[in-house]
Amino acid sequence: MVYIGIDVGGTGVQVGVVNAQGNILAKDSIPTGVGRPYQEMIRDMADCTRSALAKAGLGEDQVQSVGVGIPGIADAKTGKVIFCTNLGWRDIPLRETFRQYMDKPVHIDNDATVAGLAESVAGVSAGTDSSVFMTLGTGVGGGIVIHGKVWSGFHGVGSEIGHMILELDGEPCTCGNRGCLERYCSATAIIRMARELVAAHPDSMILALAGGNPEKINAKIVFDAAREEDPMGKKVFRRYVCYLSQAIASIMQFLDPEIIVLGGGVSKAGAFLLDAVRQEVPKYLLFKNMPHARIELARLGPDAGIIGAAMLGL
Amino acid sequence: MVYIGIDVGGTGVQVGVVNAQGNILAKDSIPTGVGRPYQEMIRDMADCTRSALAKAGLGEDQVQSVGVGIPGIADAKTGKVIFCTNLGWRDIPLRETFRQYMDKPVHIDNDATVAGLAESVAGVSAGTDSSVFMTLGTGVGGGIVIHGKVWSGFHGVGSEIGHMILELDGEPCTCGNRGCLERYCSATAIIRMARELVAAHPDSMILALAGGNPEKINAKIVFDAAREEDPMGKKVFRRYVCYLSQAIASIMQFLDPEIIVLGGGVSKAGAFLLDAVRQEVPKYLLFKNMPHARIELARLGPDAGIIGAAMLGL
Repeated sequence: MVYIGIDVGGTGVQVGVVNAQGNILAKDSIPTGVGRPYQEMIRDMADCTRSALAKAGLGEDQVQSVGVGIPGIADAKTGKVIFCTNLGWRDIPLRETFRQYMDKPVHIDNDATVAGLAESVAGVSAGTDSSVFMTLGTGVGGGIVIHGKVWSGFHGVGSEIGHMILELDGEPCTCGNRGCLERYCSATAIIRMARELVAAHPDSMILALAGGNPEKINAKIVFDAAREEDPMGKKVFRRYVCYLSQAIASIMQFLDPEIIVLGGGVSKAGAFLLDAVRQEVPKYLLFKNMPHARIELARLGPDAGIIGAAMLGL
Repeated sequence: MVYIGIDVGGTGVQVGVVNAQGNILAKDSIPTGVGRPYQEMIRDMADCTRSALAKAGLGEDQVQSVGVGIPGIADAKTGKVIFCTNLGWRDIPLRETFRQYMDKPVHIDNDATVAGLAESVAGVSAGTDSSVFMTLGTGVGGGIVIHGKVWSGFHGVGSEIGHMILELDGEPCTCGNRGCLERYCSATAIIRMARELVAAHPDSMILALAGGNPEKINAKIVFDAAREEDPMGKKVFRRYVCYLSQAIASIMQFLDPEIIVLGGGVSKAGAFLLDAVRQEVPKYLLFKNMPHARIELARLGPDAGIIGAAMLGL
């Protein structure tokens, strides 16, 4: 039997046929086509599933279940999408609608949550009892796995790590609050800190790498400047590591998972970031001499969404 | 069959005989006698257990298991106390030693954790799937229950809610960090804020209620002044509610439990505190219109430690 994983994004939908070990046997994709009636979008997902199955040389009868990861809030119990800003969806009966086109068990959850599940089935946290996955991108998303199972909270609104408070009365956040963790730990935060510094230090390598245009600064440019020992690059990097490490330490003090996995665009900095964070985190731990969560980089890359969605059916 | 619950404190040890519903059938207590060899202290706990059983008219053969809540860090798997500052214990084989005096299954965990478990078996969170218990006292402790079972973390160092970071570079904490949650949400925080204010406002009712001595200010005095509309009392109260609500909202964004239970000395303020917090928390939630955790006051009081320790054996 195989498991279908559907990764729904704002621009494209990726569908994969996945085995029980988390290996992708075949893939296909379609444009999301935001703005169309949801029934059409979901019908196309079912069609794309059939085409991916054909590529794998398999039939519908070999499908155990279908899992869907969405960039929003899902009610895993009812199979409804509660809301999903990027898709313009609100209260969409995804499971019910999908089953009109393909009658299989349908599981849904948040995309960061399923990416975390993927890592815990077939990635860096495979075989662990409990993990917290952090996607460090434009924002900060999260996925919690406890005793091998996804924990999205009792009401399905948990693992929103990016909106834990890291600073009382801190930086204003897009959510309306102040001091949310993602204002300090996202790529957006790196860019903000760099822009502030280069305004006063226009001779920084950061600005040179951005072609002299502060609007073109991105997280990679800042970290590249830091690797080259540029003072402003190093300053932003050190500050970012300090913030991220305090966020990680907070998660350890509260949930104490077996492993914390860093994914998303910022994690592509690899060992340069990982080594610094591993060194910094213990400074903030209450029990400095006790064993604590390993910190690792995500391993599955962009396929994590497909694999994790499929694994919702395990 | 009955369950023995032992609540070990810095001054006294409380032992209770508890039934499967979480009702205490009989109790006894002894002084902790800190400073003695741990073998003596543990032998006395076993003796006190026998005396509590005698009061209940029961014999050892009717004991299913023994649970011990300690004010420190326990390794639930090995039954060892990893450390416990108040008792001067470090690496104490509690289970092994206790079984030399009474050969029953022995479970151990942190005292705030077992108090949370007690509430979820026989208190305000009874019957819930998941809960986070916060003890608002001199510090802030915590207990996490997921799917009806205690979660103390993979390494046993979790649910240290008081040491999550709530403010980057914030108030210095006894643990060596800055900005720990308990610097803002404990009784100690209320007293600190009040002392700061009355220094500039010696006409405050807070100081009058403390007999003119800032050293005698406690959380109850400050909240009593707030109830009486004293401006400085109200100011501290509002600030405390704002901090505690952001801490609660952070826990909701991250773990999204079914219920959050407030215990400890500060929670004795009752509805005055609860109503204010319930009103404030939604301001900080990402999904303001989604269902979220109920916030309730602990119900079991000082017996929670005994009941919860006993319930470790359920």
